[in-house]
Amino acid sequence: MHKVALIGAGRIGRIHGRNAALNGRITLAGVVDPVAVAAEALAGEWSVPVLSLDGALNDPSIAGVIIASSTDTHLDYSVRATRAGKAIFCEKPIDQDLERARGAAADLKDARMLLAFNRRFDPNFQAVKARLDDGGIGVLESLQITSNDPSPPPPSYVAVSGGLFKDMAIHDFDMARWILGEEVVEVFAFGSCLVDPEIGKLGDVDTARTVLKTASGRLCVISNSRRSGFGYDQRIEAFASGGMVRADNVLESTVQVWNEAGASADRFQNFFLDRYAEAYRREMEHFADILDGATPSVGYADGVAALALAEAAARSVQTGEVVRLA
Amino acid sequence: MHKVALIGAGRIGRIHGRNAALNGRITLAGVVDPVAVAAEALAGEWSVPVLSLDGALNDPSIAGVIIASSTDTHLDYSVRATRAGKAIFCEKPIDQDLERARGAAADLKDARMLLAFNRRFDPNFQAVKARLDDGGIGVLESLQITSNDPSPPPPSYVAVSGGLFKDMAIHDFDMARWILGEEVVEVFAFGSCLVDPEIGKLGDVDTARTVLKTASGRLCVISNSRRSGFGYDQRIEAFASGGMVRADNVLESTVQVWNEAGASADRFQNFFLDRYAEAYRREMEHFADILDGATPSVGYADGVAALALAEAAARSVQTGEVVRLA
Amino acid sequence: MHKVALIGAGRIGRIHGRNAALNGRITLAGVVDPVAVAAEALAGEWSVPVLSLDGALNDPSIAGVIIASSTDTHLDYSVRATRAGKAIFCEKPIDQDLERARGAAADLKDARMLLAFNRRFDPNFQAVKARLDDGGIGVLESLQITSNDPSPPPPSYVAVSGGLFKDMAIHDFDMARWILGEEVVEVFAFGSCLVDPEIGKLGDVDTARTVLKTASGRLCVISNSRRSGFGYDQRIEAFASGGMVRADNVLESTVQVWNEAGASADRFQNFFLDRYAEAYRREMEHFADILDGATPSVGYADGVAALALAEAAARSVQTGEVVRLA
Amino acid sequence: MHKVALIGAGRIGRIHGRNAALNGRITLAGVVDPVAVAAEALAGEWSVPVLSLDGALNDPSIAGVIIASSTDTHLDYSVRATRAGKAIFCEKPIDQDLERARGAAADLKDARMLLAFNRRFDPNFQAVKARLDDGGIGVLESLQITSNDPSPPPPSYVAVSGGLFKDMAIHDFDMARWILGEEVVEVFAFGSCLVDPEIGKLGDVDTARTVLKTASGRLCVISNSRRSGFGYDQRIEAFASGGMVRADNVLESTVQVWNEAGASADRFQNFFLDRYAEAYRREMEHFADILDGATPSVGYADGVAALALAEAAARSVQTGEVVRLA
Repeated sequence: MHKVALIGAGRIGRIHGRNAALNGRITLAGVVDPVAVAAEALAGEWSVPVLSLDGALNDPSIAGVIIASSTDTHLDYSVRATRAGKAIFCEKPIDQDLERARGAAADLKDARMLLAFNRRFDPNFQAVKARLDDGGIGVLESLQITSNDPSPPPPSYVAVSGGLFKDMAIHDFDMARWILGEEVVEVFAFGSCLVDPEIGKLGDVDTARTVLKTASGRLCVISNSRRSGFGYDQRIEAFASGGMVRADNVLESTVQVWNEAGASADRFQNFFLDRYAEAYRREMEHFADILDGATPSVGYADGVAALALAEAAARSVQTGEVVRLA
Repeated sequence: MHKVALIGAGRIGRIHGRNAALNGRITLAGVVDPVAVAAEALAGEWSVPVLSLDGALNDPSIAGVIIASSTDTHLDYSVRATRAGKAIFCEKPIDQDLERARGAAADLKDARMLLAFNRRFDPNFQAVKARLDDGGIGVLESLQITSNDPSPPPPSYVAVSGGLFKDMAIHDFDMARWILGEEVVEVFAFGSCLVDPEIGKLGDVDTARTVLKTASGRLCVISNSRRSGFGYDQRIEAFASGGMVRADNVLESTVQVWNEAGASADRFQNFFLDRYAEAYRREMEHFADILDGATPSVGYADGVAALALAEAAARSVQTGEVVRLA
Repeated sequence: MHKVALIGAGRIGRIHGRNAALNGRITLAGVVDPVAVAAEALAGEWSVPVLSLDGALNDPSIAGVIIASSTDTHLDYSVRATRAGKAIFCEKPIDQDLERARGAAADLKDARMLLAFNRRFDPNFQAVKARLDDGGIGVLESLQITSNDPSPPPPSYVAVSGGLFKDMAIHDFDMARWILGEEVVEVFAFGSCLVDPEIGKLGDVDTARTVLKTASGRLCVISNSRRSGFGYDQRIEAFASGGMVRADNVLESTVQVWNEAGASADRFQNFFLDRYAEAYRREMEHFADILDGATPSVGYADGVAALALAEAAARSVQTGEVVRLA
Repeated sequence: MHKVALIGAGRIGRIHGRNAALNGRITLAGVVDPVAVAAEALAGEWSVPVLSLDGALNDPSIAGVIIASSTDTHLDYSVRATRAGKAIFCEKPIDQDLERARGAAADLKDARMLLAFNRRFDPNFQAVKARLDDGGIGVLESLQITSNDPSPPPPSYVAVSGGLFKDMAIHDFDMARWILGEEVVEVFAFGSCLVDPEIGKLGDVDTARTVLKTASGRLCVISNSRRSGFGYDQRIEAFASGGMVRADNVLESTVQVWNEAGASADRFQNFFLDRYAEAYRREMEHFADILDGATPSVGYADGVAALALAEAAARSVQTGEVVRLA
């Protein structure tokens, strides 16, 4: 059993804390959070102590840390944890600033660090990847990633979010890299403000279409909206030389109602914590693998690369031009 | 080109008349109907003459007749037509009375007679049959036939219809025989009156579940209702040793709407003349084959056998007992 | 927290033990099993003691027992547990013998006893029930229950199973009663041996169609096979005056592959412990409700009633006649 | 009945000829084709005369012409026909050269001219449009058009086709304009040659992603490939403020096979003449409306506008820059 400390007792921290506590190879060793009441509540739920950050990092019995604190702390805590010899499970994004993220390369490029892009751990998207990798449908040519939120966040959140591309599409940029299997060399994006004029006043967009091209000519479209009109819309279509493989949205149940209006299915699974519940469990399972000695399947370099794509897309919207990546 | 006379200018007669007129191997030679205004209207539509029944049967240039007149005339006209040397396209059912139908065997058992059970000509059900016949899913074991009408007919129709089993389920008994590929030896049915109490007052049922068993033990369920609650419900599931093949309902279009309530498809194709439009065309195509010399794929003996099953089911509801067929 | 002892450390006992241990309102207090090595393994997994049956029943701190031992012990242990004042979570079926089951009425008819028919706790089937109960699709008229196993059990299991109806269809009889909302008065069944001749030699059938009728005329078909040809087939269609609601099979993922052969979906979730994993969790949640004071939603009387239907269906196959229930 | 002459007896001409001949308001008056054997074959099929072009245009009893000849003749024949006072049914595209097409404005901008973009007449896409127009799903925000051919044409065809955007995507540019309901102001496209290197040698692309933006900020993605890997892929998704409406591909039948591999549907309807058979019938129906006096729903100006978008997309691929339309 590997002892692990949880840093950050907010909403996503509670998820990771639970998954760590229930994982057969991990022992939750304590909870760190500057908000004492939050730390105590979560620690109490699992009968573990509240820890200070230094206490956790200095405890040689603790093998790893889960960083679920605010985005601006991700880099700092990751660097401190890796210097303390810990394995790292870090929430996305790695940072909002590309240069700052790149600046941590000396410490983090070889770190035992899992950057928790949840799409990579979703059973549906993993099955898509597996179907492509097994070669049965030929060589990948293009990709359609659809990622729409059920409803827009409040403007106060948007203001500090880093913008649609870094906050929301960052997942899709990582998914594109993961599935495309080669680096993107050109990025173009159109952005509009169609959902909430307040978002536009903040200089952000709420609707975007981004197109990516790799060196070999593979194409990818990323479709984003802060509000889909029907719920949480998380889909992918991968077109290959011998066919197409796709993952569709997840429904609440298999129930259908047939009436005069036709056939209707159940609602979509709309809350992201439900939609990706299994992905969070698989992330923790992979963290246990890393604690056992495995190499992280997604880490620091992926976090930086996704952030670079997000910056490129944002710049394309601003300039109206294609952005070419080195 | 084979000259063919149409007997019966009602709703289904108009369909068959049109398909005959547009068929590349058939010439519509005239229309027979005791209601002069109906005969004239349909004949005028295709610029063909109104004929008397005798005129049509005595015209040696006419090679075949389409019998789309009322059920009580089917046997009589079929016998007269075959004696006149014509090929016959006859609407279902062959008659409402099993003994009377059997009585025509001397004339009709070797007749060039197509009994127009439209399900056998539907592309979806034909595809089910083809999948079973090609052996890819193994040996057939059981069958589920679902056949529900959109809404009940008026009691005045029910009173002369011959009852749910002879009027409506007759199609399903024929489909069972066609797909099962062997004769049914035992029949049991439950019937209820749940849709319209007037139907019950007439001594009929509007909801039924019939189970059939063949000599080798294959089982079949037929589910019927005079009103489905959602539209015209025409489905089949065939279970075989290596899997299942089914034909689902046909939708008006491929359009889906996704909104807060979930995903909904378009309405079902609810009018039987629309649902089976292609089947009617294929029936006429097969009649052209027969006129060219082919053997009818479904004829007099099938009409009698389906009627025998309908009578058995009705008797089972009345007696509460299994009916064993000779 | 309610202390609960687990009786039976076999396959299903492990599931219930885990769900009890992870339930926030239940403490797993120990494991009982005559096979010491099984008891120790499961007890060790959750760091709880191995208990004797008497030890568990005599411990006043233990509020409930989970009976996951062999079927022939269900009645005896339930009676002893209720006499000891425990709440009971008992696996299905209540027994293989209807008279013996009825004989326990004095002890069990008022027991705080949850009879664990898992279909009642499946989210999909619960959603079907909820849609019917909310009245939006009118009054229930008929039901189609499809329940096919992926592959037949070995003949050695079939020999002691009680037969297809008591062993396998018992779930469907309970589901029929639950959804129909009124008692069945007539039962008819056809049975065949089409899957494995060895099953026939044991006097059992492997394929059956059972039709049920309630006092008000509602009809129900239950379709069973020991081997579906494609996997675990667990579906229900409920026809009401205003439409149809159904629950379809559960797929492994939302992934589709489109190629020259058409569109194909992922495999069905074929292992019953996966298919009903959430149902088992919800059963335990309801047991916690009962320990908190709630009335069991399904208990002793339901177990007896389902067994009576199973016996009636078996008798109908033997006699070829309808069985009328008192 | 309106007399109509057919100009062009090739593959698509045969379709339009048949639909004209079977249309209740149109009489096929004759066939024009410089290839005598083709003209005679088609004329013979419908028992109509072969005509010269001048003969057809000079015959005052002929009210309209169907122009199904090669693309380079569309403008010339349209101008001559409108000068002769005929109504025009003209195949797409209007021409391969934007300037030349614009040059015919004086003659054609007020012509009674139906430009036959078949997508506008497909029942599925019409149903999408109707759902958007009825307002039930709110205000349109963005569009995803997927249009992939089953397999690439031979290089000899590609060489004279005008390129992927004018030859194939022209349909999608028209669909975008039709559904978006406002003009496009910015176009960007990525193109690659992934399917057939011969296409690349001809300076063309076989795979493209085009993004469009309207003045109000509505976004549209058009996905094209000369070979889909699974068949003819013709889909649209329209995202609005209150939900999404889409039209999916059309299947050969409703048949599904369930086996160990999961559930599979029938093949896609892959031949464009089958896929759009109903659209061609509806085009002819609309031409009959025009002959009756109705205003064409799609005509010369739409043909020019779609061509302008195709040219813009092609230029964007060449320059790597956004193209802004006046």
